[in-house]
Amino acid sequence: MTSIKNRSKKAGLAPGTLIHMGRAKEGTTKVDLVHYDETHLDKHPVTSVDECLIKKDIPGVTWINVEGLADLEVLRHFGSCYGIHPLVLEDILATDQRPKAADYGEYLYVVLKMIALDEGGTEIKSEQVSLVLGQNYLISFQEGLEGDVFEQVRARLVNEKARLRAQGADFLLHALLDVIVDHYFLVLETLADRIEDIEDELIDNPTTATVQAIYRLKRQLLFLHKVFWPLREVVSSLQRRDSLLIHDTTVIYLRDLYDHTVQVLDTLETLREMLSGMLDIYLSSVSNRLNEVMKVLTIIATIFMPLSFIAGWYGMNFKGMPELDSPYGYPAVFALCLTIAGGMLVYFKKKRWL
Amino acid sequence: MTSIKNRSKKAGLAPGTLIHMGRAKEGTTKVDLVHYDETHLDKHPVTSVDECLIKKDIPGVTWINVEGLADLEVLRHFGSCYGIHPLVLEDILATDQRPKAADYGEYLYVVLKMIALDEGGTEIKSEQVSLVLGQNYLISFQEGLEGDVFEQVRARLVNEKARLRAQGADFLLHALLDVIVDHYFLVLETLADRIEDIEDELIDNPTTATVQAIYRLKRQLLFLHKVFWPLREVVSSLQRRDSLLIHDTTVIYLRDLYDHTVQVLDTLETLREMLSGMLDIYLSSVSNRLNEVMKVLTIIATIFMPLSFIAGWYGMNFKGMPELDSPYGYPAVFALCLTIAGGMLVYFKKKRWL
Amino acid sequence: MTSIKNRSKKAGLAPGTLIHMGRAKEGTTKVDLVHYDETHLDKHPVTSVDECLIKKDIPGVTWINVEGLADLEVLRHFGSCYGIHPLVLEDILATDQRPKAADYGEYLYVVLKMIALDEGGTEIKSEQVSLVLGQNYLISFQEGLEGDVFEQVRARLVNEKARLRAQGADFLLHALLDVIVDHYFLVLETLADRIEDIEDELIDNPTTATVQAIYRLKRQLLFLHKVFWPLREVVSSLQRRDSLLIHDTTVIYLRDLYDHTVQVLDTLETLREMLSGMLDIYLSSVSNRLNEVMKVLTIIATIFMPLSFIAGWYGMNFKGMPELDSPYGYPAVFALCLTIAGGMLVYFKKKRWL
Amino acid sequence: MTSIKNRSKKAGLAPGTLIHMGRAKEGTTKVDLVHYDETHLDKHPVTSVDECLIKKDIPGVTWINVEGLADLEVLRHFGSCYGIHPLVLEDILATDQRPKAADYGEYLYVVLKMIALDEGGTEIKSEQVSLVLGQNYLISFQEGLEGDVFEQVRARLVNEKARLRAQGADFLLHALLDVIVDHYFLVLETLADRIEDIEDELIDNPTTATVQAIYRLKRQLLFLHKVFWPLREVVSSLQRRDSLLIHDTTVIYLRDLYDHTVQVLDTLETLREMLSGMLDIYLSSVSNRLNEVMKVLTIIATIFMPLSFIAGWYGMNFKGMPELDSPYGYPAVFALCLTIAGGMLVYFKKKRWL
Amino acid sequence: MTSIKNRSKKAGLAPGTLIHMGRAKEGTTKVDLVHYDETHLDKHPVTSVDECLIKKDIPGVTWINVEGLADLEVLRHFGSCYGIHPLVLEDILATDQRPKAADYGEYLYVVLKMIALDEGGTEIKSEQVSLVLGQNYLISFQEGLEGDVFEQVRARLVNEKARLRAQGADFLLHALLDVIVDHYFLVLETLADRIEDIEDELIDNPTTATVQAIYRLKRQLLFLHKVFWPLREVVSSLQRRDSLLIHDTTVIYLRDLYDHTVQVLDTLETLREMLSGMLDIYLSSVSNRLNEVMKVLTIIATIFMPLSFIAGWYGMNFKGMPELDSPYGYPAVFALCLTIAGGMLVYFKKKRWL
Repeated sequence: MTSIKNRSKKAGLAPGTLIHMGRAKEGTTKVDLVHYDETHLDKHPVTSVDECLIKKDIPGVTWINVEGLADLEVLRHFGSCYGIHPLVLEDILATDQRPKAADYGEYLYVVLKMIALDEGGTEIKSEQVSLVLGQNYLISFQEGLEGDVFEQVRARLVNEKARLRAQGADFLLHALLDVIVDHYFLVLETLADRIEDIEDELIDNPTTATVQAIYRLKRQLLFLHKVFWPLREVVSSLQRRDSLLIHDTTVIYLRDLYDHTVQVLDTLETLREMLSGMLDIYLSSVSNRLNEVMKVLTIIATIFMPLSFIAGWYGMNFKGMPELDSPYGYPAVFALCLTIAGGMLVYFKKKRWL
Repeated sequence: MTSIKNRSKKAGLAPGTLIHMGRAKEGTTKVDLVHYDETHLDKHPVTSVDECLIKKDIPGVTWINVEGLADLEVLRHFGSCYGIHPLVLEDILATDQRPKAADYGEYLYVVLKMIALDEGGTEIKSEQVSLVLGQNYLISFQEGLEGDVFEQVRARLVNEKARLRAQGADFLLHALLDVIVDHYFLVLETLADRIEDIEDELIDNPTTATVQAIYRLKRQLLFLHKVFWPLREVVSSLQRRDSLLIHDTTVIYLRDLYDHTVQVLDTLETLREMLSGMLDIYLSSVSNRLNEVMKVLTIIATIFMPLSFIAGWYGMNFKGMPELDSPYGYPAVFALCLTIAGGMLVYFKKKRWL
Repeated sequence: MTSIKNRSKKAGLAPGTLIHMGRAKEGTTKVDLVHYDETHLDKHPVTSVDECLIKKDIPGVTWINVEGLADLEVLRHFGSCYGIHPLVLEDILATDQRPKAADYGEYLYVVLKMIALDEGGTEIKSEQVSLVLGQNYLISFQEGLEGDVFEQVRARLVNEKARLRAQGADFLLHALLDVIVDHYFLVLETLADRIEDIEDELIDNPTTATVQAIYRLKRQLLFLHKVFWPLREVVSSLQRRDSLLIHDTTVIYLRDLYDHTVQVLDTLETLREMLSGMLDIYLSSVSNRLNEVMKVLTIIATIFMPLSFIAGWYGMNFKGMPELDSPYGYPAVFALCLTIAGGMLVYFKKKRWL
Repeated sequence: MTSIKNRSKKAGLAPGTLIHMGRAKEGTTKVDLVHYDETHLDKHPVTSVDECLIKKDIPGVTWINVEGLADLEVLRHFGSCYGIHPLVLEDILATDQRPKAADYGEYLYVVLKMIALDEGGTEIKSEQVSLVLGQNYLISFQEGLEGDVFEQVRARLVNEKARLRAQGADFLLHALLDVIVDHYFLVLETLADRIEDIEDELIDNPTTATVQAIYRLKRQLLFLHKVFWPLREVVSSLQRRDSLLIHDTTVIYLRDLYDHTVQVLDTLETLREMLSGMLDIYLSSVSNRLNEVMKVLTIIATIFMPLSFIAGWYGMNFKGMPELDSPYGYPAVFALCLTIAGGMLVYFKKKRWL
Repeated sequence: MTSIKNRSKKAGLAPGTLIHMGRAKEGTTKVDLVHYDETHLDKHPVTSVDECLIKKDIPGVTWINVEGLADLEVLRHFGSCYGIHPLVLEDILATDQRPKAADYGEYLYVVLKMIALDEGGTEIKSEQVSLVLGQNYLISFQEGLEGDVFEQVRARLVNEKARLRAQGADFLLHALLDVIVDHYFLVLETLADRIEDIEDELIDNPTTATVQAIYRLKRQLLFLHKVFWPLREVVSSLQRRDSLLIHDTTVIYLRDLYDHTVQVLDTLETLREMLSGMLDIYLSSVSNRLNEVMKVLTIIATIFMPLSFIAGWYGMNFKGMPELDSPYGYPAVFALCLTIAGGMLVYFKKKRWL
C-alpha cells in the first residue's frame, strides 16, 4: 500500500521534474563501477561522476551500479552525460513504477522490482531497480535498501572464462534480469511452504488467526501479481528484438528468461487458486463445528427437558394427586424417566447424531 | 447514480439539439482566456465572445476555459466560431459522457472526468471536462463545480522558462490531462487509507457498519472504474499519433501519461481485490463469534440441565422415596452433582471448547 | 423466458417457411406510409399493398411502418415486391431474434428490441422491431404491441426545417435506432431508482421479499444484457460503412449512436455489479441478526439456569438439610443469587455482548 | 460422464485403429439409401454395401444413413469405397467426439451431437452424428439409439417441390444440421420450464431436494455447454466458404443457421446465470428460516426462564420466608410474573421479532 | 508443490549451468537405442555413448531413450554429439518445466509431463519427458521414475507392417505424444469416478472428510490444468508446420492429436466445474441439517418450558393458593398442560416444522 501514498506530492508538477518519492529521499548514494572485457576487469567505487564519462568511450563493457537515490545531483549528472531523457530520470526516482521497458533509440530503459524476504521470512521486501542499457554500458539504479541480489553476477564477472566476460552489455542485462527472476522463485517457495503450513492448520485446528494468515498471504500474492504480471510483457518485448541494442546471440537467452517468467506467473496463479479454495474449507469446517455444538445442546435439552417437567409435575402441592400416595408411584415415574431417556438416545442414534 | 437520471429528457430529440442535463443548467458561465507564447503571456476574463475570435488567428497558443454550461448562447457562439460540430456541443452539455477522444480533423475532442474528494474526504466529487484542441488553441469546458485542478498548470504558465511556454497547444492538452490523472492518484490514496482503517476495524471489532462501509467503498471504486477504464483507451489513441494535431515532441510525454493511467488502473484493481477479500474475512469472523456464543450456551445448558433435573427429582412429593429419609441422601446427591459438573468440564476441556 | 418457448413449433420445417411465433399470431396488421422530401410530406394509412409499390420508384424517402404481424399475406407481398429474401421474412416473424444487422446488397436488414416499462413501472415490455433499409425506402415491422416509441420521430418529420427531411433513408434509420436506444436509458433509470430503494430497505429492514426483489431485478438486467449486448456489434458494423446504403454524412451520427450504446452497456454492467454486491450485504446482515438473537438467548439462559438450579436445590425434600433450618439460609441464598446474576452481567459486559 | 469412461481402451493403439467405444459396440447396423434429384426420388434399405458404390457416379444426390456402428466391416467398406481417411473412421467410432468440422478436400467431415429428452422429460439423451459430405453424396453415421430427429427432413424430401430437391448435397447437410439445432431449442425449452418450476418451489417451500434438482440441472446445462459451444465454431467455419463443397446459394442458409446456433448459446447462458442466482436465493432463505426458528426459541426461553426461576424460588423449603406466609404473597408473585411476561413481549415487539 | 521447491538452488548461476533439480539427482541413467526402417529393427541397451554417434549418419530412424538424469556426463556427451544447446540441456535437467516446444532449426525440443496414477489410484505420479527430434533421430529423456507409458509404442515398432515403421522420426514423435495424451484420459477417468463417488457421499452422508476430499481433488485438477493447458499450444504449434522437421504426412495426425488435447482440456474443465458446484451443495446441506437440529431443539423447548413453569408454579409453598385445595385443581392443570402441548404441536404442524 505504501507505494500508493507518495504519488500525491507530484500532482501538477511539470513532467520531468526531479523530486523524491518514498524511501528514495533518505540515505546516501553509492556509485560502483565495473569495466571489463575478455582479458581484464577493473572494479572500484566511484567518487567523482566525471570518471564515468571517461570510461564511456573506451572499448569493453562498463557497468555502473548506483545504490540509493538521495543525491539528485548525481542523477542529473548521469542524465546529461549519457543523454538520458528527463522523463526517464523522473521514472527512476518514482519508486512505484509498474515494470516496463522503453526503447529510446540510443539506450533502453528497463524498470522492475527486486524481491526478497526479510530475516523472519514473513515480510516481502521490494526494491525498485532501473536499468539503462547503452551500446557498451549498463547503469543500474537501486532504491537504496541494504544489499542486493547481484552478488552472484559479480562473482561470475570475476571468473575470466565466464561467457559473461565475452559478451556485450546486453548479456549483462540478461544476467541481472535472470538473477532477479530467480529470486522471485525463492520468495514463491517460501510462500508455498507457508501455504502448506496453513493447510495443516486448517485440518487440525482452524482459528481466526488462520483466516487472517490466509488474508495476509492473499495480499502478498496480490502484490506479487502486480509486480510479476507486467514483467512478462517486458521480457517478451526484449526478446522480440525490438531494439538494436539486443544482439542475436542474447535473444536465445532472453527467450529462456521469458520461459522462467511465465513459470513464475504460473506458480503464482496456482498459489492464488490454492488460497482461495482454503477459505471455503475454513467456512465449511466452522459450519460443521457449529453443527456439532448444536447437536450436543439439542441432545442434552431434549433428554432433560421432559424429565425435568416430570420431576416438577410431581413436586406440585395439589391435594388429591393419587399417584403420590400409591406405593408404585415412585418406581413407575422412575421407569417412565428411564424409558424417555432411552427412547431419545435411540432416536438420536437413528438420526446419526450420536 | 445521478448520472443515469438525466438521459431521459433527451429521448427522441433530434441529434445535436442543445439541452441541459444534470447540474449544467444552474449557475453562471464564466469564460477565461490565456494567450501565450515564449516571450509574453496575456490572461484575463472574457466578457464578449467575439474577443475569442480575434485571438484565433494570431500566433501563439490560446487557452479558453469555460466554467459552467448554463449559458447556451456562449456554447452556440463557440460552435459556429470554431466550427465545432453540433454533436460535439451536445456531448459537452451531456454531463454523463463516457471518457472518449474523437478526431474531427480540424480539431480533436477529448472528454473525461475531473475527480476530487469533498472537504470531509468521504464523498467523491466528479466534474466533466471537455477539451477541444485546435491547431493553436485549446478550449476547456467545465461542468461548473466550484474550483478545478488546473491551478498548478496556470502557475507553470506564468513561469517564462517553463517548457509549457515553448510548446504548442497539444502540450497544454497533455499538461491538463496529466494534472487530472495526478488527482486520480490523490483520490486513490485517500481510499487506500480508508481501506486500511477498515482492515483494522475488521480484526478488532467488526460491526454491520463495517460491512456498509465496505459496500460504500465498493460502489465508489465501481464508479472510479467506470471513469478510469475508458481513459486508458483515450490516452492510448492520442499517443498513437492518430491525429496531426499532436506533435512528435509531445508523443513521448503522452506515453508517460499512458504509463500513469495504466498505473491508476492497476492500483484501482488492487484496491478492489482487497475489498472483496475483506467481506470473506468479515463473514468468517461473524461465524466464529456465533460459534463462541453457542459454545457458552451449550456449556451452561449441558452442566445445569442434568443438575436441575436431579434437584427437581428430589423435590417430588412421592411417598416412599427412601433416599429422602436416609441421612446419606443429601451428601450423596451433593457428591453426584459435583461429579456431573466436573465430568462435563473435563469433557469440554477435551473437546477444546474451554 | 417466454421467448424460449416458441421455437419448438418450427423444428424441422424448411428454412424460409413463414409461421407465427409468440404474440405475432394475434391482433391485426396495420400499415402506415410516410413519403417525404425537403419540400413536401405525405402521410396516410395503407389499405392496399400495391400502393407501396407505386411509391417505390418516385424520388424522396418512403417510410412504411407495419404494426402487427398477423397477416402473413401482407408480409409475402412486401417480400416479393421489395425482393426481400424468405429467410429475412422468417426472421421478421420469429419474434425472439437476437439483435443483428445483415447486409443483403440491395437492402440492409436490422432487427432489435424496443423496450418500455408497463404502467406500474415494474415489468419490462419488449417488442421486436425489424428494419429493412433500401436505397430510398425504409420498412419497419413491429410485433404489434399497442404503441411504439417513434412518435417523436414522426413529430420531427412534420417539421419542414428538420435535418431529417433533408437526408436520405439511412438518416431515418439512424433516427429510429436513436430513439429506441434513448428509451433504453429510460428503462435503466427506473431500474436504478428501484435499486436505490432496495438499498435503503437493505439497511433499514431486510426481509426475504428484499432478496426476491433483488433476484427479480437480476433477471430483468440479465434479459436487458441479452438485448443490449449484441446491439453494440450491430451499431458498430453499421458505422464501419460496410454497406453502400449508409452515406458518409450519416456515419458521424452513427458513431454518436455507438457511443450511446456503449454507455447503455456501461450503465447496465454497473447496475449488475451493484446488485451482486447487495446479496452479500443481505447475507451478512442476516448473520448479524442471528448473532444478536443468539446472544439474547445465551445471556438469559446463562443467568437463569444456575439460579433455577439453586432454587430447585433448596426445594428438595431431603431430611437433614441444615441450610433450610438456619435463619441465615434464605438471606444467604438470596445473596448468592444476586452475586451470580451480577457476575454474569459483568462477564457479558466485558465480552461486549451487552 | 459416461463419455469420459471409454477413452482408456484406446490408449497406445496406433492412430486409425478401428475399435468400439461406448454404446457403439452393441446393436445392429442398418443402412438406408435415398437417391434424389428434382424429378425423381428413390429410397430403400441397403443390404449390400456395393450398392452404395454404384450410386456414387450417377447424377443427383445420394444420402446414405448408417444407424448403429456395431458392424466394423461396413465402416471399412465405406472407408475404402469413398476414400475416407482412417482417422475419420476412427473419429466416427469414438462416440465422445467434440463437435468439429474438418475439410479433407474431397470430402468434408462434420461431427456433432443429436440431443433429445427421454419420455419422462428429465434425462437428456445424446447421440453422436457424423456427417461426411462429398460432391454429390452425404453419409450420416448415427451411434445407434432408437429413432432420430431427421424424420421431418425425410418428409420434405418426398415433396417434389421442396427447395431441398432442387439443391445439392450441401443443402442436405444444412437441412440436417438445421433440424438438429432446432431440437436443441426443444430441449432448452423443457429445461427452462423446469427452472421455472424450481423457482416457484424456491419461494414456496425450498427443501434439499430443490438444491439437488438445481445441481442436476446445472450438470445438464454444463453438458449442453460442452456440446453447443464448439458447434458455433463449426457452423462459422462452414459458412466462411472454406470448402469448395459448399455452394454460394447454401452460404446464406448457413449464416441463418449460425444465427440460430448463437441464439442457442445465448439461451443456454441465460439459463445458467438464472440457476446460479437461485442457489443464493436458497441459501438466504435457509438462513432466514434459521433466524425465524431461533427467534421462536429465544422468545419462549426469555419469557419462561425468569418465570420458572420465580416459581422455583417460592418452591424452596427454607424456614423464614416471610413472603410465603403473607396473604399478599401469592397475588404479588402472580402480578410480578404477568409484568415480566408482558415486559418481554413489549421488548420483542420493539425489536420487531414479533 | 514439490516442483516449486527446487528452483532456488539455481538462483544466480550462469544460464546453461547443468545442475540437478528434484528427483533427477538420484538413481541411475539407463540408455536404450532402437534403430529401425521398413525392413529391419535393431534394439539394445547402450553402454557407451559413442555408439549413438555411429548410428547418427546411417539411414533409418534412431530412437534413443534416456531413463534417469543422474549421470551428467551422458547428457554433456549427447549435447556435444547432437549439437544440443546448453540451455536445452539445462531445461532437460530442470524437472519443473512448463510444457513447451522450441524450434532450434537443426532439431526440435519438446518438453511435457507423463502422467500416471500410483497403485492405490489416489495419487498422481508425474514425470517430465524431454523429446529432441532431429532429421532422422529422436532422443527422449525421462526423469527416471520406474516404468513409462511407451510400452505400446515399442510393441507397435516390432510389428513390421506398422505404419510407424514406414515413416520418419517425426511420426515417432507423434506416436509418443499420442500415447502420453491417451494416458491423460486414463487419469481423468479415474478422477471422474472419484468425483461420482463423492457425489453419492454428498447426498447420503456428507462429512468434513468429504470436503477435504473435494479440496484434494481440486488441487489435483489444478495441477493437471497447469500440465495440460500449455500442451494445447505446444501441439498447435507443431501442427502449424512451423518446423521443417515435421512432414506433411504427419501433420494430419498431429491435427488429430490436437483434437485429443482439446478434448482433454474440455473434460478437465467439466470436472472442475462439477467440483466447484459440489461445495455449494455441501454448504447448503450443512445449513439444512443445522436447521433440522434447531427445529428439534425449539420444538422441545417450546413445549416443555411452559409446562415446566406450570408445574413449578404449583410447587410453590405459598399460603392461600386456592387451586391447590380444590378437588378440580389437579385435573384442571392436567387439562391445561395437554391443551398447551397440543396447541404447540398444531402450531408447528402449521409452520411445517413437523
